[in-house]
This record gives sequence, C-alpha cells and structure tokens, in this order.
Amino acid sequence: MQIPYYIDLLGVFVFAISGALAAYGKQMYNDMFGVAFTAFITAIGGGTIRDITLGVHPIAWVDDGNYLIVIFAAVLFTVSFRKRLIRFRRTLFLFDTIGIGLYTILGVQKSLAYDVNPLAAVILGMFTAVFGGVIRDTLINEIPLIFRKEIYATACLAGAVIFVVLNHFGVDSDISSISGIAVIITIRIIAVKYRIALPKVDH
Amino acid sequence: MQIPYYIDLLGVFVFAISGALAAYGKQMYNDMFGVAFTAFITAIGGGTIRDITLGVHPIAWVDDGNYLIVIFAAVLFTVSFRKRLIRFRRTLFLFDTIGIGLYTILGVQKSLAYDVNPLAAVILGMFTAVFGGVIRDTLINEIPLIFRKEIYATACLAGAVIFVVLNHFGVDSDISSISGIAVIITIRIIAVKYRIALPKVDH
Amino acid sequence: MQIPYYIDLLGVFVFAISGALAAYGKQMYNDMFGVAFTAFITAIGGGTIRDITLGVHPIAWVDDGNYLIVIFAAVLFTVSFRKRLIRFRRTLFLFDTIGIGLYTILGVQKSLAYDVNPLAAVILGMFTAVFGGVIRDTLINEIPLIFRKEIYATACLAGAVIFVVLNHFGVDSDISSISGIAVIITIRIIAVKYRIALPKVDH
Repeated sequence: MQIPYYIDLLGVFVFAISGALAAYGKQMYNDMFGVAFTAFITAIGGGTIRDITLGVHPIAWVDDGNYLIVIFAAVLFTVSFRKRLIRFRRTLFLFDTIGIGLYTILGVQKSLAYDVNPLAAVILGMFTAVFGGVIRDTLINEIPLIFRKEIYATACLAGAVIFVVLNHFGVDSDISSISGIAVIITIRIIAVKYRIALPKVDH
Repeated sequence: MQIPYYIDLLGVFVFAISGALAAYGKQMYNDMFGVAFTAFITAIGGGTIRDITLGVHPIAWVDDGNYLIVIFAAVLFTVSFRKRLIRFRRTLFLFDTIGIGLYTILGVQKSLAYDVNPLAAVILGMFTAVFGGVIRDTLINEIPLIFRKEIYATACLAGAVIFVVLNHFGVDSDISSISGIAVIITIRIIAVKYRIALPKVDH
Repeated sequence: MQIPYYIDLLGVFVFAISGALAAYGKQMYNDMFGVAFTAFITAIGGGTIRDITLGVHPIAWVDDGNYLIVIFAAVLFTVSFRKRLIRFRRTLFLFDTIGIGLYTILGVQKSLAYDVNPLAAVILGMFTAVFGGVIRDTLINEIPLIFRKEIYATACLAGAVIFVVLNHFGVDSDISSISGIAVIITIRIIAVKYRIALPKVDH
C-alpha cells in the first residue's frame, strides 16, 4: 500500500497542530515564532531524522513546498481556533493516534525500500512517528512525551513488527499495512482508556 | 554576491566567541573543554545542520581545517581577554547581528543552488544563522535564545524572504544580498533598541 | 590496525549497558521502553553522528542487524543482573574506559579514510566516543556528563592527537592505534583515581 500524497499532507497538518498547541502551554514559547517553529519541528522532525539516517535526499519538505504551506496553514488554523480546538481534544487525540499509525508504517516501508535490515526498519518506522515530538520536547526542556505517557512508542514498535513479519511471509502489502496501522491505533486507544503503562523495571 | 572566504571565517570567529562567553555564565561548563566545545557547536552547528539536511558533502569544517583553527583562536582569544570583551558587549552585539545577517543570506544562496523550494531555502537560511545557538542552549539545558529574545530568528526569516523575492524577480544578486542582510540587521537593532518582541498569541 | 568486528560489537554491548543503567537512575525512564531507548541512543549515537557528518552510508546499525541484537541482549542482561552489575561498578568503569579508547581511534581512522582534515578527524574521533552519551543526557534533561566529569572527552582528544601525529610520521598503524588507545585509558584512569579535572577558566 502506497500511502497517498494527500494523506501524507494531512498527517503533517495534524502533527503541526499538536506541535503548535504544545507551544501554547509554555509562557516562553507563545509568540508567533515559537508556535510556528515548534509546529514545524514536530511535523517534519521524525521523517527528516529517518531520511538523514538512511542517506535519502532530497528530503520531502526540502523538495516540495506544499509541506511547508500545510504547516503554515496549520499554525494559522491553531492560532485562530485555539479555544475550539481545546474542546475537541478527543478529536485531536484520535488524529494523533491515526497519525502515528500511518507514519510508523510509512517509515518502515520507506526503510525497507532502501534495503535496511528489518530490525532497523522497525526502529526507523517508530522514529518517523515519534522523533518530531522528541525534538520538540527536548527543545522546550521537557521530559520527552515518549518517556512519560501511557504506552506510545511501544505501540508503534508493535505495529511495525507486525508489518515486517506479515511482509516477510509474503502477505499482501495492503493487508500488512492496514494490520500494522490497526495494531498501533488499537494498542494506543486501549492504553489511554485504561491508563496502561509498561511496568517499571526498577524493583 | 559570493560571500568572500575570509568573511565566512570572520563569522565563525565571532560566533565562536559568543559561544565561549555563553559557557562562562554557567558554573558547570567553564573548564577549557566546556568552553571550547560550546564555542565549536555554536560556530558550526547551523551550517552543519543545513548541509546535512541538503545532503551536501563534504561539510566545510570537515574539509577545511582553517575553520577549526579559527575556532581554536577564538577560544584562546576569549579566555585571554574575557574581562575586556565584556566591556565591549555592544561591539559583540553588533558582530553577532552582522553575523546572523551574513549567515542567513549565505544559507539561502547555498540552498537555492541545490534546487530546494524557496520556502525551504528561507527556513534553511534562518537555520544556518540560529541553529548553532539552539544546539548550544539545548546542551546547556537553557531555553533556546531564539524563543526568549526580542525578535531574532524572525529578523532572519524577513531578510531571507526579501532576498528570495528580489532574486525571483531577477534583481542583481549583489543588490538582493545586501538588501536581505540590511533588513536583518535593521530589524534586529530596532527590536533590541526599543525592546520589541512579537506579540504573544495566548490570550 | 583494523579493529575486529567482534570487538566493535563488544563496545556496543558495553555502551548499551551503561545507557540502560543511566535510565534506571531516573524515575521517569525506568520502564522497558525508556531503558531500551536510552541504551540504543547511548550505544549508536556517536557513530551515527560521525557517519552522518561524513556523509557515509549505510550506517552500521542500519545495514547490519547484529548491532541491534547486541543492544537488545545488553538491555535484557542489564534488567536481569542489575543488582550484581552495580557491585561490579569498577568493572563497568574499566569497560567504559576501554570503550571510549577503542571508539575514539576507530572514529579517527574512519574519518581519515574519508579524507577529512586531521583536526576534524580528531574531533570526529572524540564525537564517536562521547556523543551517544551527550544525546542520552540531553534527552533525560541532565547536564551532559562530558561537561561534569573528571577529564573525559579531553582524554579522547589527547589520544586522537597522538594517533594522528604518529600516523602522520608514518609510524606503523598498529603501534599508532595502540598508543592512542593507551593514552586515553591512562589519562582517564589517572583522572578518576586522583579526581583530576581541568582547571576552571572563570576567575
């Protein structure tokens, strides 16, 4: 399954909104530049780290201005409708969850296409989904969300493993992709609903 | 306008001094290694991030040892004349301002030469000027300066846009470059003089 | 001297253990994901930064799954034997010290093979040894160890310089490598034993 171009742009839009909203929370970052910069890093950070690690050029947003226009639109959208957006927190959570599902599998597919080993493809898929948020949180001096939240990156790893295994056994590409995405979304929703976290190992 | 080699080296010298001085402020970093490392990251971080994003190799300081010699000289210079340097704070501010002007336009030119879209060129130009400082501040656990200061990165964006627009309309390259640099320097000086910041968006 | 493959993997194993143990110290990071992620970044961060800066692809762990298997084994090992490992703190210190010695010289050799200038090779060698730890500490919001500890990165720089100089004068590659590694290990052990730090420059 090739993830269609407009879905890729939609993912950028959703991640940019989540980045812009994160900047609002912190007094220091809430001028237009801080909001836009945080939106940008959140939206393109993961894919950029993946492509740089793979040595793939040109990187999507460097080549194609539409990614940046979409981020800009997301920033304007967030600034204009912030109060309403907060009421739609559940919608945003769903969007973010769909986003990490799509991005993980997209990242695994791209990595495999460049002949990396399956374990590295799993890690690079997870990076595609979560590393924008990691850079965002590091920049604003917070403990990265991936370390704090109920199962998050681990859901991406699980879905990526499913995809790689199905793919290895020759399962149809569409079915593998949808299975991987479904696993990520399901684990994440269940984890948040029942506040499930990984067990602590320090005992 | 090709920015001449020795002006490029002068920019590295100035940014390295600003990095070395930043390390002094923090008790933890003020041994020779901390000062030199911070100077190095500040001076070469922005250009390195730009070249890695563009996929351009070899990176300047990897290819040409003079950049590292200049940074080393800047560290020795700062260590020897620190007390006097602090009295020349205004001079340093002016140097930093000229530095971000030059680096932004240099970064935009280089990006356009590698056929990136104009919006990405603007962002990569701004990154060239400010990302060394962002990495520096992240390493020393401070809120990056670009988020705190009076208009800083935004001045770089404005100058970069001016350059790209003039360039697009076929204006002579020297005039476009000087216009872009002048816009950056002017905005920055006015912003600091009258303590102008971007309006907060959280209201 | 070509550093043998299994010694390279041993280095990854040791660095991954040191990363995993670092995650235990912080309440926030001590679920399995936090421990594994921190182990991974610590083990492969330095070499990855070096290869990306050099523009060398594929990066070792992307190409060869054994690196990731070794990291995974190190995480399981740490989780299983944590209490005993803490009693072997001296053994771990020794392993880390040998690790930074090997990695520095390995990094310098690889850089020189790609025709970088000798000063940049020295810096990239040091980065190979310490940058995994720098990223680790930045992610967990600590002041990077290289800024806090008794002489650490400086020992790597000294060993790298020795290697480059001997190499330049045509000394046999094995002798140059062993000399460089020995210098790093010796300086580091003496520094820790006698609590030697670089002098502060702020006076």
